Amino acid sequence: MTFLQEVVDLLLAYIVESFDRETKVIDFHYPNELLQLNNWELQDEPATLDDILISCRATLKYAIKTAHPRYFNQLSTGLDMVGLAADWLTSTANTNMFTYEVAPVFVLLEYVTLKKMREIIGWPDGRGDGIFSPGGAISNMYAMLLARFKMFPEVKEKGMSSVPRLAAFTSEHSHFSIKKGAAALGIGTESVICIKADECGKLIPADLERRILEAKQKGFVPFFVSATAGTTVYGAFDPLIAISDICRKYNVWMHVDGAWGGSLLMSGRHRWKLDGVERANSVTWNPHKMMSVPLQCSALLNLLTPQGLMQNCNQMHACYLFQQDKHYDLSYDTGDKALQCGRHVDIFKLWLMWRAKVGGLACGRFVPYIIAAYLFPLSLVCVFPQPQHTNVCFWYLPPGIRYMEDKEEQKKRLHKVAPVIKARMMEYGTTMVSYQPQGDKVNFFRMVISNPAATFEDIDFLIEEIERLGHDL
Amino acid sequence: MTFLQEVVDLLLAYIVESFDRETKVIDFHYPNELLQLNNWELQDEPATLDDILISCRATLKYAIKTAHPRYFNQLSTGLDMVGLAADWLTSTANTNMFTYEVAPVFVLLEYVTLKKMREIIGWPDGRGDGIFSPGGAISNMYAMLLARFKMFPEVKEKGMSSVPRLAAFTSEHSHFSIKKGAAALGIGTESVICIKADECGKLIPADLERRILEAKQKGFVPFFVSATAGTTVYGAFDPLIAISDICRKYNVWMHVDGAWGGSLLMSGRHRWKLDGVERANSVTWNPHKMMSVPLQCSALLNLLTPQGLMQNCNQMHACYLFQQDKHYDLSYDTGDKALQCGRHVDIFKLWLMWRAKVGGLACGRFVPYIIAAYLFPLSLVCVFPQPQHTNVCFWYLPPGIRYMEDKEEQKKRLHKVAPVIKARMMEYGTTMVSYQPQGDKVNFFRMVISNPAATFEDIDFLIEEIERLGHDL
Repeated sequence: MTFLQEVVDLLLAYIVESFDRETKVIDFHYPNELLQLNNWELQDEPATLDDILISCRATLKYAIKTAHPRYFNQLSTGLDMVGLAADWLTSTANTNMFTYEVAPVFVLLEYVTLKKMREIIGWPDGRGDGIFSPGGAISNMYAMLLARFKMFPEVKEKGMSSVPRLAAFTSEHSHFSIKKGAAALGIGTESVICIKADECGKLIPADLERRILEAKQKGFVPFFVSATAGTTVYGAFDPLIAISDICRKYNVWMHVDGAWGGSLLMSGRHRWKLDGVERANSVTWNPHKMMSVPLQCSALLNLLTPQGLMQNCNQMHACYLFQQDKHYDLSYDTGDKALQCGRHVDIFKLWLMWRAKVGGLACGRFVPYIIAAYLFPLSLVCVFPQPQHTNVCFWYLPPGIRYMEDKEEQKKRLHKVAPVIKARMMEYGTTMVSYQPQGDKVNFFRMVISNPAATFEDIDFLIEEIERLGHDL
Repeated sequence: MTFLQEVVDLLLAYIVESFDRETKVIDFHYPNELLQLNNWELQDEPATLDDILISCRATLKYAIKTAHPRYFNQLSTGLDMVGLAADWLTSTANTNMFTYEVAPVFVLLEYVTLKKMREIIGWPDGRGDGIFSPGGAISNMYAMLLARFKMFPEVKEKGMSSVPRLAAFTSEHSHFSIKKGAAALGIGTESVICIKADECGKLIPADLERRILEAKQKGFVPFFVSATAGTTVYGAFDPLIAISDICRKYNVWMHVDGAWGGSLLMSGRHRWKLDGVERANSVTWNPHKMMSVPLQCSALLNLLTPQGLMQNCNQMHACYLFQQDKHYDLSYDTGDKALQCGRHVDIFKLWLMWRAKVGGLACGRFVPYIIAAYLFPLSLVCVFPQPQHTNVCFWYLPPGIRYMEDKEEQKKRLHKVAPVIKARMMEYGTTMVSYQPQGDKVNFFRMVISNPAATFEDIDFLIEEIERLGHDL
């Protein structure tokens, strides 16, 4: 207990430091260097508790301070104290989601929360089903599994050889997990057809319809459309109403990947971006992103048609877990719906934060919108005409290439700018922001604001830092 | 910070209580009752921090005390203080495993630990690959994915329609995740062929060979054999050497599902049960079971043939995460190997516990063997002749049916005994043990010992409690 308290003292000090702008975001070292800086190898002799505390200190010293107001590198940033407390409680309770028997409270909280999320999506009386899964990629995989099983239930026993060639559709800006899911499920990445997006990154419905018809002509059976609510890079929202019209016309399962943007459903001001989501068959929504719930917390929600779809799709009736002669209502033994057997308790942190902040979860979080709006005009050369979410993508053109006449040469040189600035940022440890190319666009910075601790000042700092670090390039 | 400290104080008190035999294992309520006992619904008004503390207290009050010395219900029991501290640190660091960029220390620790685990398996120089995944079912799914991709790499792009009908083989006592994986991956449950087990629950190699030949004759391509090291119910170890001979003969991927028994690899005294594991192509090993690492911690390890198999199987080259022009050694960006995108940090708790206990992790843990040996002769009517692991399965025959002459009627009545005793155990909250039927065997108790806090006295208590609660049946 003294040991645990000592670790807690370390952690509390780390948290205070993480929010302090005087602290570095990262004390960066190259992998080989870091391997030598500390004795990370597993020894043959047990360490004392004092040594263990030293290991904890070293681990924190070289960790990225993801709560730091100047850490903008990923969609999940920040650290919420209620969420953290809930995660500590979850670790202490150390149980598993498979049955009511071993996780009575957590199973009920999952039930209550999933229902609330479905109500917010707009499904009548919050009807439907759902599950918390280990991340958005797996949530999207569940959606694809359900869509396939609904159309061809024999696939469960007989596999894909009993089924015609399937086709799935998603925007060229959608998340790579759609293809990853198709590869794993035996559908194949070639069956994922990428639909054109406009300059803002939104899927073009006319192209979707064209590609569905084309696939049908080629003998494929269209079974799944994944629309994105908040793309990873541009933060674009696909036009859900138009997409749902097409899905209904061709009788295709409509999934909405709202891993990033789904949390806007909680905001009176921004939820219009997801208009039409209530027409979807399934929705991915990751509270660990915009809602700042500690990692991981991702839900797949589905409208319950037909009854028991997820259960029927995945269940295997393991009789050591899901005995049918138990003394309580077996509908609370939800584990057989899952792809997993043991399932980590991800619900409590969301439930407790929701309770502490309610709408505030959303409203508080929408400070990032104000920050993003502040960044946009400052952001050097923008990649897209108008931000739709808190993503802002831009190029920094150092003076040496700013006025180059040879545009091809300029592009080539510009492509190398962001990686060098990023490397320098990490070496100085002052801030972190992501970069990438996209299609024919060379490397640009993707700023994304989800940390409630970030202020206008931090944005000014970032822009100045990019200029400082890239001026000579 | 005061709030966090108050939650910690609650948690420390809960831990002390959990180890106290005077405390109930569970304060049981039926779902509808529990829903009404506390206000679990999500409100429209934010709660105060005092209310949040009350919610934490209520959650702990109705939680199962999985660390309690008389909680025997699952394979994962107990609570280790170093592991818990490590999990609290992980939550505080709140990062993601996808790249070295955002998780430098954790990525290195995963690298170091996976290598050590492969050395322990016995692969030359610890060569190979691996990943920590969200549980044994997903680890087994990875193995099946790798086996399929190795034989038919075109499946990734073209799906299962480009591949002949596959056949996988596993014991009738194996874990249900093998079938679940086959269903999800588009292989189909009918392609999973169940091999006969002997009375101890071990796979019969002659039956495996017969069924492989039969499948080939029917035009199936055998691609995957999953042997089990520690079955869920009996704790049986399949004969790995004989199985590997067959796998080599027919050129089939050999997987060892050591989710439960894999930890015996760390014990000089017990590792012979896994002799032959070094011949496997892949191994599932869950430190969250016998090694008492907090939930979840599961690894899939694979022998690296050919080079980069896991990467090639799953990678999608997302250019917003896995930029190829980064400034450090990109082989540490391991995220594209995963089925997931974001991946929870499960490594630190294992690494820290390993450091604190080393072999002790194993040796200390093998107290449960002594306890299991003590239980076996006491355990009323045993289901199998000889325990191989810490699983002991037995029937309790109440006096009213003990001497019945009509054996069919006796079986029918006996089938109802365990569920009633279990229900009563939970209502009294004194202890918890699992039960189930298996094949033609009616409901029996499955005792499993993995909690290092359990003693002979707790076993005596369990047996007496079963007699007390079932005497009238």
